[in-house]
Amino acid sequence: MERFSNNISDAYLLQKIYCKTMTRKNKLSCGLDLDFDSNIENALECSSGEGYDFVCLDIVNPEKKTHFLKAASGDKLGDKTKPEFMLIGQEWCSLVVGKVSKWLTLNSGLDGQKACAENAVTQELNFAAYLSLPAVLVYLQTQDCASLAKTIYTHLLTSHHGMTVWVNVPLTVGPGKINGVEEADEENTSHEKQDSWHWWNKFRCLCGQHNRIGLALEITADLPDELVLKQWLGEPIRSVVLPTSVFLTNKKGFPVLSRAHQFLMMQLLRLNCQIVVTGGNEHDSGLRVYQQYVNHLFSSHPPLGQYEAFAQGYEDYLQAPLQPLMDNLESATYETFEKDPIKYQMYEEAIYKCLSKKSKDNKSDSHLVLMVLGAGRGPLVRASLRAARQAKVKVKCYAVEKNANAAVTLELLRQHEWMNDDVTIISSDMRKWKAPELADVIVSELLGSFGDNELSPECLDGAERFLKPDAISIPCNYTSYLSPVSSQKLYNEVTGAGLLDKEKRHDAAFETPYVVRIHNCHELAEPKKVFYFSHPKPKADNNSQISENNQYLSNVRYAELSFDVNKSSMLHGFAGYFHCTLFDDVCISIVPQTHSPGMFSWFPIFFPLLTPISVKQGDVVNVNMWRCCSATKVWYEWAVTEPYTSPIHNPAGRSYTIGL
Amino acid sequence: MERFSNNISDAYLLQKIYCKTMTRKNKLSCGLDLDFDSNIENALECSSGEGYDFVCLDIVNPEKKTHFLKAASGDKLGDKTKPEFMLIGQEWCSLVVGKVSKWLTLNSGLDGQKACAENAVTQELNFAAYLSLPAVLVYLQTQDCASLAKTIYTHLLTSHHGMTVWVNVPLTVGPGKINGVEEADEENTSHEKQDSWHWWNKFRCLCGQHNRIGLALEITADLPDELVLKQWLGEPIRSVVLPTSVFLTNKKGFPVLSRAHQFLMMQLLRLNCQIVVTGGNEHDSGLRVYQQYVNHLFSSHPPLGQYEAFAQGYEDYLQAPLQPLMDNLESATYETFEKDPIKYQMYEEAIYKCLSKKSKDNKSDSHLVLMVLGAGRGPLVRASLRAARQAKVKVKCYAVEKNANAAVTLELLRQHEWMNDDVTIISSDMRKWKAPELADVIVSELLGSFGDNELSPECLDGAERFLKPDAISIPCNYTSYLSPVSSQKLYNEVTGAGLLDKEKRHDAAFETPYVVRIHNCHELAEPKKVFYFSHPKPKADNNSQISENNQYLSNVRYAELSFDVNKSSMLHGFAGYFHCTLFDDVCISIVPQTHSPGMFSWFPIFFPLLTPISVKQGDVVNVNMWRCCSATKVWYEWAVTEPYTSPIHNPAGRSYTIGL
Repeated sequence: MERFSNNISDAYLLQKIYCKTMTRKNKLSCGLDLDFDSNIENALECSSGEGYDFVCLDIVNPEKKTHFLKAASGDKLGDKTKPEFMLIGQEWCSLVVGKVSKWLTLNSGLDGQKACAENAVTQELNFAAYLSLPAVLVYLQTQDCASLAKTIYTHLLTSHHGMTVWVNVPLTVGPGKINGVEEADEENTSHEKQDSWHWWNKFRCLCGQHNRIGLALEITADLPDELVLKQWLGEPIRSVVLPTSVFLTNKKGFPVLSRAHQFLMMQLLRLNCQIVVTGGNEHDSGLRVYQQYVNHLFSSHPPLGQYEAFAQGYEDYLQAPLQPLMDNLESATYETFEKDPIKYQMYEEAIYKCLSKKSKDNKSDSHLVLMVLGAGRGPLVRASLRAARQAKVKVKCYAVEKNANAAVTLELLRQHEWMNDDVTIISSDMRKWKAPELADVIVSELLGSFGDNELSPECLDGAERFLKPDAISIPCNYTSYLSPVSSQKLYNEVTGAGLLDKEKRHDAAFETPYVVRIHNCHELAEPKKVFYFSHPKPKADNNSQISENNQYLSNVRYAELSFDVNKSSMLHGFAGYFHCTLFDDVCISIVPQTHSPGMFSWFPIFFPLLTPISVKQGDVVNVNMWRCCSATKVWYEWAVTEPYTSPIHNPAGRSYTIGL
Repeated sequence: MERFSNNISDAYLLQKIYCKTMTRKNKLSCGLDLDFDSNIENALECSSGEGYDFVCLDIVNPEKKTHFLKAASGDKLGDKTKPEFMLIGQEWCSLVVGKVSKWLTLNSGLDGQKACAENAVTQELNFAAYLSLPAVLVYLQTQDCASLAKTIYTHLLTSHHGMTVWVNVPLTVGPGKINGVEEADEENTSHEKQDSWHWWNKFRCLCGQHNRIGLALEITADLPDELVLKQWLGEPIRSVVLPTSVFLTNKKGFPVLSRAHQFLMMQLLRLNCQIVVTGGNEHDSGLRVYQQYVNHLFSSHPPLGQYEAFAQGYEDYLQAPLQPLMDNLESATYETFEKDPIKYQMYEEAIYKCLSKKSKDNKSDSHLVLMVLGAGRGPLVRASLRAARQAKVKVKCYAVEKNANAAVTLELLRQHEWMNDDVTIISSDMRKWKAPELADVIVSELLGSFGDNELSPECLDGAERFLKPDAISIPCNYTSYLSPVSSQKLYNEVTGAGLLDKEKRHDAAFETPYVVRIHNCHELAEPKKVFYFSHPKPKADNNSQISENNQYLSNVRYAELSFDVNKSSMLHGFAGYFHCTLFDDVCISIVPQTHSPGMFSWFPIFFPLLTPISVKQGDVVNVNMWRCCSATKVWYEWAVTEPYTSPIHNPAGRSYTIGL
C-alpha cells in the first residue's frame, strides 16, 4: 500500500530521484587497474580501446617511495605525481580512480614515522581531491587499521569535495596470507585478525559508518562459505575488484570464472556496483577479454520478475508510511494500487469462498449484506460483485469510503458500471457511520507493510457495531513479522533523512519506521511472528477489566522475540512484514518465505536502531516491541535487550505516531 | 590546575552551586518505610517522634488490590488513596516518598492484563506527582522488566514535575529468592536472571539512563563479594533501603550491623544518599534505635583528608579544562593554586637537588642561569630562591610570564620581596622571547590533569632555543594515564552539559574532556600509561623525517591500551591522570595508586563516550587515543575498539581543541 507516499520532504525526494536517474544503468561500468605509467593519456587510450570505462592509477609514483617519505613531511609533491595538464578536468573526474600508496596504509610502530605516513596519505587524498577524482582506492591490509581510519575520516570531515573512498578489502584471508604484515606475536593471531570482514567492520565503525566510505570487495581465488558471503552482501559495496588471477581458462583459451565465482558475481552485480579488473594479462587475448566476460555475465542476468521490475529504482529508498486515516489519498495512488496483479485476485477468491459458505448456511433465500469498508475507487466492490456472480449469491453491497473525493468516483461507477447491481455508496468514516442494517460480510484492505500499522484494528473495531453475530471479516486475521537486519546503506539513509528536519530531535529519524524496498542488506535470521489481530474481535479480547473509556487498550500489544545469530554482524534495525489470512486458506503475504508471487502493493517496513549494535557469532538478539494506543493515536516502541540493552526507541511516541 | 575554570556557561554553574548548597548535608537524612495506614498524620507524627526525617507510604491501599485492578481500567482512584487534605502541600513534598504497588510491577503474561497493570502504575505515578511527592519507590523484582521500564520512562518523558524515581533493587538475589516470581522454566534461569545488577542495568538502559531515575539499593543479609560491591558503587544510588532484619543484636539488646555491613554502609554514606529503614521492629527499644545506629555510623566517619576536604562539593561536577595559553588566568585563580600544600614543596626539593648537582658539575664559580617559565604570581620564583639559598648556589633568575597582569605583580614582588636577589621579570610569551643568555635550568608548571593537555610540550619546545646543551628542565618528564570507568552520574552530567549549547553538534559534549572530581564511579581496571614527554626534547625525537615546517608533528602521539574487565559493567568513558618526574626521584602524581598525599591542584580528567558500552565479565576493553597537532591547535581523539568498535570521538578536533 505504501510505496507511493512521499511525506519525506520534496527536496529529498527530488534529490533521490535525481540520484536514481544517475545511477540506474543499462550497462555495467568496468574499470582497469593499471600499474604506474607516466603517460596517462596513452594508458587511458589503450584501456578505452580494450573496452574499459575507467582506470585506476597510483596517485604518486611508487618508485619514489623514499623520496616521498621525506616530501611527506612538508615538501611539495613536485614531479612525483602526475601533472594535471595531461588530462582535461572532465577526464580526471570521470575516468580515473586514484590509488593511495599501499605501503603507506600499513601501520608503523614509531610515533614519528606513523605521523609522517598519515601526513603522506592525507597529501595523496588532497591531491586526488584537487584533481576532482570521483573516488580513491585505499587498501585495508590488516586489522590494525585505527590510524588509517582516523586519517581517512579526518579527510572526509574536513574536505569539501564529494570524492568517495573505496576501501579495498579481500574477501578472505588465509592464515599467513595477510599481505606484507608480519605476525610476530603468534598468540595474538586471533580468529578476528584473519577475518577480513572484521577489518572492514572495525574500519567503518571507527569512521562512524560514513556514507562516503564504500567497500571495494576484492574477489579471492578461495571463496568463503555461504554465511560469510551473505555477511558481505549486507555491506555498502561500491565496487568489486576482480584479479585476473582468479579466472580459469576454458578450452578455447579464454578466461572464465568457476561456477561458484559466477554465482557470487551475479549476486554482487545485483547491487549495482562497478567492476575493477586488476592484475596482469594472464590470457593471450589481451585485457579486453576480462571486461567482455564480466559484461557477458551481466547481460546473462535472468529477466526481472514482476515484483523486482516494479521495485526497480526503489531499492533502499526510504518512504514515510502512509497515514490514510489522517490524509486523503490521491486518485493516482489508488490507480497504482489497483494495478496489483495478485491482490484483487486473492480477494475475489476469498470473497467467493466466503459467500459460498454463507449461502450454504443460509437456509432462506434472502440476500447477503456485504459491506466494503474503505472502498477507494471500487476495486473491492468489483471483486465482490464478480465473486457473488460466480457463487450465484444475491448480495446487497454497501461501499463505505471516508475520502469524499473517492466517493464521487464510486457514485459514477455505481451509475455506469454497477447499475444492474444493488450497490449503495456511503461517503462516511466507517467508525462513525450509522448503518441501516447489519452486515453478513465485511471486506476491507486496510493493511500496511507491518499489518496493523495503518490502523486496520482500530477501523474494524469501529465497524463491530453493525455486524451480525456470525458476520465474517475479510481479512479474518493478520500477523506481523520481524527479522534483524544489517544494512549500512539503510543506516546511512536514515541518517540522511535525520538531517532534513532540524526542528526535530536529533534522533527522531531513528525512532521512525520507514517503508522501503530493503535491498543491500543482510538478514541475520528468519522473520518471527510479532502481533496477531483477528476480526471480528474475539470475545476474550473484550477484556472484562477494560472499561469502555479505555476500549483502545484492547489493541495494545507487546512481544519479545529472540533470534539466534550465526554470523558476526552489525545490527542496524529490523525488517517488518505481514502475513494475512483473507478467508479460509486464501492468504496474502509479504514475508519473504511466503511472499505472494508478483504482489507488489507492499514493500517491507524498517525499524532502525539509533546506535548500531555489534553482534557476535553465537549471540542471541532479543527485541522488545510494543504497540501503544491512546485515545487519539497509535505508535510503536522498540528496544533491544540482548546481546545488550538499548534505550527504548520512540518512548511515548515522541518521534512518530499514527493519528486515529 | 583546573578546578576553578568555569567555561561552562554561568547559568549552568549557578544552577550547580545552588544544587550543591541544597544537597551538602551535615546530617544524614533517614526515612521510615511504613505499612499502609489510613491515618497519615498520626503515622508521620510517630515517625518524627522516633527521629525519622521522612516516611515511605503506599500510594494506594494494598488491600484494595482487586477493586483497584478494575479502577485501573478507567475509574477514578476514589477512596482507595489517601485524601490529599490530610497533609498540607509542604508536608507532602518534603516528608513523604510514595511506594508504587509491588504487585503491579510484576509482569503478567496476557496483553490485556499487562496493559491494565501498566495503566495502574501510571495512575499511581500521576497521583504521586499530583501530591508533589519528591520521589516514588518502584520495586524491581525480576529481570523481566521491559514493560515496567517503558511505563516509568513514558511517565518521566510526558509529565512536567521533578519527581525522581527510586528503583528498589536488592543487593543480591540467591537462587529461589526472586520475590514472588515463579521460575517455571528451569533452563532459562540463567546467571543473569539471578544477578540483580543485571536487572538494574537492563532497566536503566531501557530508560536511556534517565537522570531522574536513581537507585534505591536494598541491603541484604548476605553480602556479595567485593567486586560486586564495587560494581554497585558506580551506580547512581539515591537511597539505601535497610531492612531491620539485617541487623544483629548486641549484648545490650540493641541492633548493630555486622562489620562487613558497617564497612559497606560507610562506603555508601560517602555517596550522600538517603537511608530508608524498612521492616518490622525486631528489637525491644522501638524503631528509633535503627535510625540512631545509622546516624552513629554516619557521625563516626573519619575526618576528611586535606584533598577530600578541599574537593568537597566538587564531586562529579564537570569543569571545562583551562586554556591558559588562550585565556589569561585571574589573580584569585593563582591565589588558590598557591595554597596547594604539597606542590611547591616538591618543586623546591627538586630545584634544590638540581642546583646542588649543577653546582657540583660546575667547576667555575660563575652563577647559574635559572628561568621560571610561566611564573604567574611568583610561587616558583620563591621556591627557586629558597632552594638556591639552601644549596648555597648563586643563581641569576629570569621570571617569564605571558600574562601581562601577573607580570605587574611579579615586578612589585621583585622590588619588595626579592630586592636582594638577582631576579629579572620578563613580560613575554616564552615561545617568542629573545633571551639575552642561555639557561642552565628551566622551571615550569604547565601541566594539566592529563599531563600534556595544557600544552606544556609545545610551550617548552618554544624554550629550547635558549637552553645550554646540558640544561635541565624541571619537570624532566611526565606521563599520562587512563583507566576505563563506569559512572552513570558522569554520563548524566555530560548529557546535561550538551543541552546547554544548542549551537553545537548534539554530540559535541561527548567529544569534550572534562576536569572533574570523579566520585560516584566504578573504575573497571587500574590506570595504564598513555603518552610520555620529556624535556629538553631528546635528539631522537627531532625526527629527521620531520621538516621544520611540520615541527609540531613531533608532539603527535598515539597509544592503544588494553584493560581486562573482571566484572560486567557499563563503560561510560575514561578517567585520565598524570605522573610527573620533577627531577631525579622527586615526583608529583595524581594517579590514584601514587597520588601525592594532600596535593589538591588537579582533579582527574574525564573522556566520555557518546554511547555507553556494555562490557561483560572477561571482556577486554581496548581504547585508542590520539594526541593530534596542527600549526594552531592540539586536540585528542579517542575510540574504543574492543569489545566492539565505537566511532572515533572528536575527529579532526570538531568538538574540542586547545588553542596554541
